[in-house]
Amino acid sequence: MPQPTLDFWFEFASTYSYPAAMRIGDEARLRGMSVRWRPFLLSPVFKANGWSTSPFNIYPAKGRYMRRDLQRVCGALDLPFAEPPGFPQNTLLPARVALVALAQGWGEDFCRAVYRAEFGDGRDIGERDTIADVLRTLGRDTEAVLTLAQSDDNKARLRAQTEEATALGIFGAPSFVTPSGELFWGNDRLEAALDWAKR
Amino acid sequence: MPQPTLDFWFEFASTYSYPAAMRIGDEARLRGMSVRWRPFLLSPVFKANGWSTSPFNIYPAKGRYMRRDLQRVCGALDLPFAEPPGFPQNTLLPARVALVALAQGWGEDFCRAVYRAEFGDGRDIGERDTIADVLRTLGRDTEAVLTLAQSDDNKARLRAQTEEATALGIFGAPSFVTPSGELFWGNDRLEAALDWAKR
Repeated sequence: MPQPTLDFWFEFASTYSYPAAMRIGDEARLRGMSVRWRPFLLSPVFKANGWSTSPFNIYPAKGRYMRRDLQRVCGALDLPFAEPPGFPQNTLLPARVALVALAQGWGEDFCRAVYRAEFGDGRDIGERDTIADVLRTLGRDTEAVLTLAQSDDNKARLRAQTEEATALGIFGAPSFVTPSGELFWGNDRLEAALDWAKR
Repeated sequence: MPQPTLDFWFEFASTYSYPAAMRIGDEARLRGMSVRWRPFLLSPVFKANGWSTSPFNIYPAKGRYMRRDLQRVCGALDLPFAEPPGFPQNTLLPARVALVALAQGWGEDFCRAVYRAEFGDGRDIGERDTIADVLRTLGRDTEAVLTLAQSDDNKARLRAQTEEATALGIFGAPSFVTPSGELFWGNDRLEAALDWAKR
């Protein structure tokens, strides 16, 4: 019998996607489930809502709260939390690379390494050099991967995946979607989403 | 030794404040803690953020998600969930009455009864008749309470409490504030807030 699967929709710029990405593998294994990692871009979703940037920038009280809450959430998980220069980060390149990496079977390690560089070490993941470093650490052929990531086909795949997210009703990250189409939003809904997908 | 106390900031129009209000008494008792109920109005907070109504109305995808999520959250708690006519409800009158009721020692029962009427039975809590019904069910002198609630002093207390919420960095409901000023937002942060206040 195939394992029940949960779709994990994430955006590298999303702070709450960081603890979710670090937890989801273990939480799914505990339940005998598999996860499909689905990177997408939040900026088109924000634009559709009339926001020129993250709501955490537009509403300062929300931004202040989010930073403090993230410290607490990461502290409870023993995850380091550092802020990269500039929020939100430009995540076009890592999202494109993630699609290539996931298609080749090493994507989950890549995604976790990107989050670790960004929110663990506070590095700028919009920089090509940062992504190249991550790829080298994973033993990948940096130039070959980046060329594939920047191909027209791959760019179109990321656009299509972002459109699919919007069509599913996704408006933030992380989001989780069960095979029956049930949508859950937020790191704190991870367990509920896995349990729903399994039942 | 006095019990550790958590401040519970809520707005009667807030859907997620409903399960929080129904749970917080038991969760606090489990931990040997007390709760100070602090009603306030979200509409001035929304206005300060440039919103003319609830973000759940302005952003339809968020509104659709919230309704489905509430069904799930209430379902897991065996709480009925029905929508009152119009969202958000006009909560000026019940918030004013809540201040009187809390000062007189029967406020928690009143608040739970208002939430039950609103989101359990789907009644319009902006209507004076609904609030009068709730007061009668609790065995209160309806006219005397409503006169106190609509006094200039009491109106000023609600304004001051709402300003205090804003000064604390509160931007949504339910919110929880520990004696050390630590802010938690959302029904799903209730346990974390109680544990933080107790430590």
